[in-house]
Amino acid sequence: MNDAQLKRLSKIKILVSDVDGILTDGKILVSKKTEAKFFHVEDALATSLLKLADIPVSFISARFSEATKTRLDELKIKHYFQGCLNKVQALNKIISIYNLEYKDVLYIGDGFVDIPVMEKAGFSMTVPEAHLEVQEQADFTTDKSGGTGVLVEIVKYLLQSKGIYHKTLLKMREQIYDI
Amino acid sequence: MNDAQLKRLSKIKILVSDVDGILTDGKILVSKKTEAKFFHVEDALATSLLKLADIPVSFISARFSEATKTRLDELKIKHYFQGCLNKVQALNKIISIYNLEYKDVLYIGDGFVDIPVMEKAGFSMTVPEAHLEVQEQADFTTDKSGGTGVLVEIVKYLLQSKGIYHKTLLKMREQIYDI
Amino acid sequence: MNDAQLKRLSKIKILVSDVDGILTDGKILVSKKTEAKFFHVEDALATSLLKLADIPVSFISARFSEATKTRLDELKIKHYFQGCLNKVQALNKIISIYNLEYKDVLYIGDGFVDIPVMEKAGFSMTVPEAHLEVQEQADFTTDKSGGTGVLVEIVKYLLQSKGIYHKTLLKMREQIYDI
Amino acid sequence: MNDAQLKRLSKIKILVSDVDGILTDGKILVSKKTEAKFFHVEDALATSLLKLADIPVSFISARFSEATKTRLDELKIKHYFQGCLNKVQALNKIISIYNLEYKDVLYIGDGFVDIPVMEKAGFSMTVPEAHLEVQEQADFTTDKSGGTGVLVEIVKYLLQSKGIYHKTLLKMREQIYDI
Repeated sequence: MNDAQLKRLSKIKILVSDVDGILTDGKILVSKKTEAKFFHVEDALATSLLKLADIPVSFISARFSEATKTRLDELKIKHYFQGCLNKVQALNKIISIYNLEYKDVLYIGDGFVDIPVMEKAGFSMTVPEAHLEVQEQADFTTDKSGGTGVLVEIVKYLLQSKGIYHKTLLKMREQIYDI
Repeated sequence: MNDAQLKRLSKIKILVSDVDGILTDGKILVSKKTEAKFFHVEDALATSLLKLADIPVSFISARFSEATKTRLDELKIKHYFQGCLNKVQALNKIISIYNLEYKDVLYIGDGFVDIPVMEKAGFSMTVPEAHLEVQEQADFTTDKSGGTGVLVEIVKYLLQSKGIYHKTLLKMREQIYDI
Repeated sequence: MNDAQLKRLSKIKILVSDVDGILTDGKILVSKKTEAKFFHVEDALATSLLKLADIPVSFISARFSEATKTRLDELKIKHYFQGCLNKVQALNKIISIYNLEYKDVLYIGDGFVDIPVMEKAGFSMTVPEAHLEVQEQADFTTDKSGGTGVLVEIVKYLLQSKGIYHKTLLKMREQIYDI
Repeated sequence: MNDAQLKRLSKIKILVSDVDGILTDGKILVSKKTEAKFFHVEDALATSLLKLADIPVSFISARFSEATKTRLDELKIKHYFQGCLNKVQALNKIISIYNLEYKDVLYIGDGFVDIPVMEKAGFSMTVPEAHLEVQEQADFTTDKSGGTGVLVEIVKYLLQSKGIYHKTLLKMREQIYDI
């Protein structure tokens, strides 16, 4: 990530992300009765760091899934939206809740359905597995793949751009790991 | 894919595919009571694009699995066949339903059981993991692996060969994502 | 595989294999109540080819697992043994059932527990993920990894060594796929 | 691993490890009702070798999971701790149980939450997927990835450093595999 990108990223006030393909590798484990997805234990680190840095986080998924609900509830995400094919409408609700504007949003997505949101967001990121068209739209493509804890890479960039990465890590250690 | 292949592909009127190894990576998660398989969220994009382009899609699986039924029902596939070791018989039913001929069919498969169908289909594709004998029979081997959303790569070729890829994406955006 | 190996392999009369690490990638999906493992759909091709070639197949697993039972029953394996830390004892039962000798056995395994059986078997194979000590003991290490349908690679070598690979494939097509 | 590292490792009297990211690949399979994780069948070899070598083994996990309980119970781990964000407190309990000191501990972890424990342990290891900061803190990074049976690699180093690897393997064969 170059200096111009970091400067733009430093203005971001909220992180909003797609779920399938970002928190997961896009795979859905289907059986007769139920559905499951692989989330990554490390994403909890990302949401903890965001909380310690007072940066809100929200999710918008085009597809409804109970597994997504279970994981986002475990991560204590206050506001998330599922079953939204029109993701701009969900984004409008989110920025209204937090009294923010499009330019304040860092949006992460990997599908065609994410492009309209990426066009509006202040900064957009995607993963290496995303369609070419999505990668061309995104301001930045992460090194990590979806489902491998990519949110940590993203939150690290965000906190570094604001010059608060090490401070927030230390805060986490003092308040959580080593009290 | 070369120009001669694209020209042949442009004549295709229906997409018919195997399931295990194409929509999945060929793995079956077995427990005492049930069975599950990893499908990919992106294949729903492929079937949506086909629907918008008015190209029917159907599936033939040699093995019966409730997981396959659940996923194909979610994708709203009207006609699919499971437990068919003789896949040509199933293909005959499919082309009869749609009043089509063998030459109209794009068939995707990865197993020996798929070879008799590939011999009849107008165009055949397989995945990089397929047996050498199947790759030799297929007209084209995809870049993407089975279970990683390979149907999107295939549908992209198909729509491009007909010169309607960008038009169909735009239609999807206007009718679904950005209304 | 070189000519000397193929010549030795051509004398084999039975295939006996470990399960975890061979039919699977060695991973066990553990939840509170149950356990599941990824098997590969292609291994059914291997056991079908063996049946058509009249070569018996059996399995010995050091660990008991209901998932293994479910999969081996689906593959219609007549004789298999689970929970056998002493695998030579299980091997003795198997060769007694089929009235065979150690030298008739092709054994496939990947763990230290498999070494005593490999030492006795007429021919032994392992997978690329196996411990160095096991690879040194094995007569041959496959290209395919455990859990990706490696049994097909092995059965192909076995039938080729006997000069009956193409004949058996044709038999399969005539009797199963294309009747 | 160099000679100086092996010399330090030879003084170790207990192995203590994180769970997610070490015994697993860090992924959590989430469905509506339950949660599952992939453990590796080979880790049972590691704990068996440790038992034969009279070296105790214990685990500390920051996150509570029934799946972890099921697996650690199957491996017959006597003392393990879950839901411990402050892992040093759990480490204190473990060394008190075995009447040992910090310097006697080989600790394996991959997260920021593991750093305070790594700072105290006599020797610390991590996996290639760990954060850069954790890799910088660790005395050694393994070749194997978390969830692929990495404990076997670690126990092999430990027994080799004490000059008892081959003796312990032989003991295992005599007492378990080939009785």
